[in-house]
Amino acid sequence: MKAIEASSTALVAKSFDALAAEIIARCAALSRFTEEPGRITRTFLSPAMEDCHRLVRRWMEETGMEVFVDRAGNLRGYYSAAEEREAPRIILASHLDTVPNAGRYDGILGVLLGLGVVEALNGLHLRCGIEVIGFSDEEGVRYGLPFIGSRALAGTLGPPQLARLDANGIRMAVALGDYAAAHPEAVEAALHPKTRGYLEFHIEQGPVLDESQLPMGVVDAIAGQSRAVVTFRGRAGHAGTTPMTLRRDALAAAAEWLVAVEAAGLAAPGLVATAGKIVAEPGAANVIPELCRCTLDVRHASDEIRTTALKQILASADAIAAGRQIAVEHTIEVDQAAVALNPALTALAEKAVLAAGHPAPRMISGAGHDAMILAAKTPAAMIFLRSPGGISHHPEESVLAEDVAAALRAGLNFLDLFENHLESESSCTT
Amino acid sequence: MKAIEASSTALVAKSFDALAAEIIARCAALSRFTEEPGRITRTFLSPAMEDCHRLVRRWMEETGMEVFVDRAGNLRGYYSAAEEREAPRIILASHLDTVPNAGRYDGILGVLLGLGVVEALNGLHLRCGIEVIGFSDEEGVRYGLPFIGSRALAGTLGPPQLARLDANGIRMAVALGDYAAAHPEAVEAALHPKTRGYLEFHIEQGPVLDESQLPMGVVDAIAGQSRAVVTFRGRAGHAGTTPMTLRRDALAAAAEWLVAVEAAGLAAPGLVATAGKIVAEPGAANVIPELCRCTLDVRHASDEIRTTALKQILASADAIAAGRQIAVEHTIEVDQAAVALNPALTALAEKAVLAAGHPAPRMISGAGHDAMILAAKTPAAMIFLRSPGGISHHPEESVLAEDVAAALRAGLNFLDLFENHLESESSCTT
Repeated sequence: MKAIEASSTALVAKSFDALAAEIIARCAALSRFTEEPGRITRTFLSPAMEDCHRLVRRWMEETGMEVFVDRAGNLRGYYSAAEEREAPRIILASHLDTVPNAGRYDGILGVLLGLGVVEALNGLHLRCGIEVIGFSDEEGVRYGLPFIGSRALAGTLGPPQLARLDANGIRMAVALGDYAAAHPEAVEAALHPKTRGYLEFHIEQGPVLDESQLPMGVVDAIAGQSRAVVTFRGRAGHAGTTPMTLRRDALAAAAEWLVAVEAAGLAAPGLVATAGKIVAEPGAANVIPELCRCTLDVRHASDEIRTTALKQILASADAIAAGRQIAVEHTIEVDQAAVALNPALTALAEKAVLAAGHPAPRMISGAGHDAMILAAKTPAAMIFLRSPGGISHHPEESVLAEDVAAALRAGLNFLDLFENHLESESSCTT
Repeated sequence: MKAIEASSTALVAKSFDALAAEIIARCAALSRFTEEPGRITRTFLSPAMEDCHRLVRRWMEETGMEVFVDRAGNLRGYYSAAEEREAPRIILASHLDTVPNAGRYDGILGVLLGLGVVEALNGLHLRCGIEVIGFSDEEGVRYGLPFIGSRALAGTLGPPQLARLDANGIRMAVALGDYAAAHPEAVEAALHPKTRGYLEFHIEQGPVLDESQLPMGVVDAIAGQSRAVVTFRGRAGHAGTTPMTLRRDALAAAAEWLVAVEAAGLAAPGLVATAGKIVAEPGAANVIPELCRCTLDVRHASDEIRTTALKQILASADAIAAGRQIAVEHTIEVDQAAVALNPALTALAEKAVLAAGHPAPRMISGAGHDAMILAAKTPAAMIFLRSPGGISHHPEESVLAEDVAAALRAGLNFLDLFENHLESESSCTT
């Protein structure tokens, strides 16, 4: 318990509340770095990201960290261990990129909380090193491929990904080559071999914690995800002259199916099924739709429940279409298995939250996160912070200062527990 | 029966079949005049319409007609009565404008059938004059206001209509002023005072005649029409992180409502209820829709049935939204009463079709037509021709040559019956 005691003492000068307020102010400061005036939009390897790096680098350096960029555009600050240069290390990370017209906290808060936890150590060094990483891309806006930053560290950024083109026809490999040329000091984009764990703080981006009036939750697993596009093809016709009984209305078929999608989502606890996008063609008020295309997004922590639900939902599309003499086709665009986070580190995260004085409900993350990518390579854990109103990917995204303070406490607790954990594993070499 | 006998004799040289083939070839010839290469699009007062007029004018003149344009851009050919300059007259008309990416027959066929009937007279003049009109605008593409040509003749093109702007910001009054300046010979856009009736041939634009395997139908009435826009406003959310039970999904609400719309349409014979356009926002696959906006189009020959159905459909939107804690609003954009066509002329049209050797089913037109506008000023009747596949407002719109030939016979029969009708009314002054 040395770390916590030491830092708690040190934090008499700068309270958790003051540090939380500073983190929130830093999120606001970074929101200025955008590609779109008036909105927050910061994508992979953009000039706005360079500006963001400059400021975060300064904060990292002020906290006594050694700062690098790697050749995937990740910003990496290392806070050394007390005694040994090549000590085991824990990563505290999240991402610095945003969706278009984003809020200030998605990703960013996790990076700045990692930095804040180091700052709360107030100069104390632990038996383990701490690496704070700001990933270069998690949202996948520029290349339609999420997690570029963490994939690079996990070694899963291969030729198919590097061949992708952005909206300007720039191949990812070329963009990364240009970045490396402009940053000759950049280190290899790889996980340090002494990495022993990964902890990510992230806003929940959903309403569960807010509805339960809790500041934090501990993520057990990242839900698996299926995405499909379902297209109904009927027959166009004049809205005034085609009797109801002679219609093959693609939108009417889709509507019947969307009701079934919602019912399927409600049928199994923890399952979510969403149609977010719909297009009807030709799309005139007085023409019966010939075509209707919908997206489908199905997620669950159990891959079996998810794939069974998907099958049932697509079968209902087939049945509805057949009953209406309408053609239907579906293409599966994503079929991503659920990812369990590390049970040992998740237990530490739970204890850390409890020790901070808050309940630590276990949660499934319905959204993908960098933790899911790193989990393949190192023990990973994740702590959610309450999203007021469940609002995210929106300028009104927010956090409560008290929750950020609570997360700082939990982060310090986690470091302490992690040290002991390494020791008990006899892998911390101090 | 003089007219029919005479023309039938004359038509030994040029058969109804040959004339029908020529009409179909003329529809093809006019399809060249378009504002959009590769598609048929011909709007109000456009250069394409000028080209179209040049060719139709030539055909009218070759048939012995005196040809004018009026100051609403209508093309008007007069085939004089046998003995008297100012004899009573019947109008045979439809429109020469098209929707974007149109077929060849909607409107056009009616104008060329009017001309064809005159040509079938083969030089014989009747006791009544015949005016063939090609209206300048029925589809309402340029000004978002249909029936400009026939409204001008009916005297219902007033200041509110004339103040409308097209996509280039040109006021309708200005466009008409420019047209009149370029056509100093144009006559007043008014119904001739001696007009005693109106007959319009038009493709059905629906599948009823095709399903019954009949070439023609006689239109009793034009259905009344309601158009509304219904907007559901829920709450956006992450598709992965928002449990089904905490959602306020605007698209899910709209889907439930669209099922109710279709059920309402099916509940009353002759009623049609259509949602042709749907928009969900923000419209991303992984975001729960915050807003969903649908158009609604409800039609029936009985205004009471229509307005009752509309009320019920909008009430179901309210109930569905309330059950989901979603806001809903509806705006009524069109509320147009049904228009009965003239019973006496409709009876003549029926007899004319029967005399041509075909059943003459009575029909309600679900679409608006120029006949509906003229019906306010002169006895109007309308004959539908079968639309193969019910296809219309589409490049694959078609007609059968045998149906066009049958319509020519029916048109000649109608003229003969109309002469007798005028005589019996003692209003034909020969």
